[in-house]
Amino acid sequence: MSADGKTGLQLRSLIKKSGELEISLLQVPTPEPSADEVVVRVEATPINPSDLGLLVGAADMATAKAAGSKDAPVITARVPEAAMRAMAARLDESMPVGNEGAGVVIGTGSSEAAQALMGKTVSVIGGAMYSQYRTVKASDCLALPTGTTAAEGASWFVNPFTALGMTETMRREGHKALVHTAAASNLGQMLNKICLKDGIGLVNIVRNKDQADILRKIGAKYIVDSSAPTFMDDLTNALVETGATIAFDAIGGGKLVGQILTAMEIAANKTAKVYSRYGSSVHKQVYIYGGLDTRPTELNRAFGMAWGIGGWLLTSFLQKVGADGMKLRQRVAAELKTTFASHYTQVVSLQEALELSNIAVYNKRATGEKYLINPNKG
Amino acid sequence: MSADGKTGLQLRSLIKKSGELEISLLQVPTPEPSADEVVVRVEATPINPSDLGLLVGAADMATAKAAGSKDAPVITARVPEAAMRAMAARLDESMPVGNEGAGVVIGTGSSEAAQALMGKTVSVIGGAMYSQYRTVKASDCLALPTGTTAAEGASWFVNPFTALGMTETMRREGHKALVHTAAASNLGQMLNKICLKDGIGLVNIVRNKDQADILRKIGAKYIVDSSAPTFMDDLTNALVETGATIAFDAIGGGKLVGQILTAMEIAANKTAKVYSRYGSSVHKQVYIYGGLDTRPTELNRAFGMAWGIGGWLLTSFLQKVGADGMKLRQRVAAELKTTFASHYTQVVSLQEALELSNIAVYNKRATGEKYLINPNKG
Repeated sequence: MSADGKTGLQLRSLIKKSGELEISLLQVPTPEPSADEVVVRVEATPINPSDLGLLVGAADMATAKAAGSKDAPVITARVPEAAMRAMAARLDESMPVGNEGAGVVIGTGSSEAAQALMGKTVSVIGGAMYSQYRTVKASDCLALPTGTTAAEGASWFVNPFTALGMTETMRREGHKALVHTAAASNLGQMLNKICLKDGIGLVNIVRNKDQADILRKIGAKYIVDSSAPTFMDDLTNALVETGATIAFDAIGGGKLVGQILTAMEIAANKTAKVYSRYGSSVHKQVYIYGGLDTRPTELNRAFGMAWGIGGWLLTSFLQKVGADGMKLRQRVAAELKTTFASHYTQVVSLQEALELSNIAVYNKRATGEKYLINPNKG
Repeated sequence: MSADGKTGLQLRSLIKKSGELEISLLQVPTPEPSADEVVVRVEATPINPSDLGLLVGAADMATAKAAGSKDAPVITARVPEAAMRAMAARLDESMPVGNEGAGVVIGTGSSEAAQALMGKTVSVIGGAMYSQYRTVKASDCLALPTGTTAAEGASWFVNPFTALGMTETMRREGHKALVHTAAASNLGQMLNKICLKDGIGLVNIVRNKDQADILRKIGAKYIVDSSAPTFMDDLTNALVETGATIAFDAIGGGKLVGQILTAMEIAANKTAKVYSRYGSSVHKQVYIYGGLDTRPTELNRAFGMAWGIGGWLLTSFLQKVGADGMKLRQRVAAELKTTFASHYTQVVSLQEALELSNIAVYNKRATGEKYLINPNKG
């Protein structure tokens, strides 16, 4: 680390052809900002599930070992043989990590837009945020209102835009209410706040009573527990009441996707007037945006012919909406301390993020556990 | 049967609340044609997989029993308990069967369009075609060119429009080549003829060598056998060569849908320049239009995030394309004896269609076996 920001630590994830994952900290020079760029001293950057995918890849973290020194720790772990094919494209490439974060602008290029940010606390999207210093485009920064800290602005992009992307996709594809799984997550709570505010029907699917309680406390109206024996009936009733015909699923594996489509089909047929052996003509859609359950997705296809399943990725959504994305950005800025507030259980330095005991906690991706890295902590 | 067509036999399929399927022949009056309608003496109507869904429903035909007389046979069979839920909407309703067919117009309403068809051999779409006489809209008829028989015009709709619907969907959704499974079927052969004529790349997936031979004989270029140990590599190579990123699947169950998406992803990544842990940004689509394998669909999701799977139904496609459907109709009429020719292994009467030995054959839905009913065979 250099106090002037000329160089700084950067977290790197490397998967070697030999099948070894190596996570380490590198001292890297901070690029000089071009006209439209700024240099940010990163003070807060969250560990999202989407970051873990790059950070640990397909490695089996039960095999993780710590080496190196306290200041320069090195974590290694084995990638199972069967998973190496999926890693092919990143082998032997040392990759920086961290989608989003916030910090203070300590240098700028010559453009007006860049200079206007000097000294300000800004939120940033642009990758490699698990770094002490980042040179980024001014247009990838959001100047935070006075009184908003870097920690408050760190998770400004991935969860808020994903949650807004869900309600926006719902509208654009002609649905009037939606279903969300793993619904007690930070993202899920955010989605509830949006839907309550915007008057959108939201069916929350959770996996146990504790998660249901989390949502009940923030005012969620429709909560169904997939571990309850009455799950399918509870879900169908909530679908009839809300009219939800689109779902966003963070889980991916197992039978849940098919169960949601089946319940939607039963709900649709409750109002159908004539028999069609092809089922209801109401289009039922599930988008899978996460993979908390890595087992195969199993579909019994008992839901007629008017259905679709697909992957849903924030970056693809933003490409599709184009300039409309700026409207979403304004909304996030205005509601950063309310609708889009995130909660963290730990704030760690880059070195602490590489402690095995911490990795074991945040790599579980458990509801309610969320880590924030402050690369300049200490 | 009455020679004047005032009444006639009609095949009916009934699933009772008790769980019994009953297939029988009813003597029904022929409705008087309204201004825009015609009365058709049906002389040829095929048994398609889509008809079998309504004809036998979810019944276990291994339990089928014959009763009644030779002229008025009655077939009964058990519907397994577990399948009754999916039959809920049709219970205790006696349903006519038969999507398409052809015959001679023996009566018309007062409109010019209807009267113009008098005495002509016409192809018809409109359900209940397993009947001796049908009163249908003139607009649901296609007058056949002189010299075309009812048998040649019987399968004018389901397979031809499904095959054309596939290439049309491919174009509309921005793909340049396609994949088809169970590719040696009547439909699959038709699709090959269309693609050869129109210069569209088509990857045919078959399940054995005999099916591959059928396609090779009609000039199919890309044939891959899912039972071969080199299947995934063969498929990937064919996808690279054709650039196919959309598939139409008749099978539904098992791992094939996921294998197709996985091979498409591998093919897409062969030309990708940078690593993305979300996989290729090329959208990969599989439409399931049949269910030859009734087991669950199993997806390993090893194909990035840019993918979709959905049901594909001819009627929904035709609704979507609206008036453009008439262009497809003109093409079918012009190429009925070439591109859209069907082949039958048996021509049976309505009574013969209800013989257990015949049901056992056509209900197998085996490639190469296709039945045609002539309700006025005598």
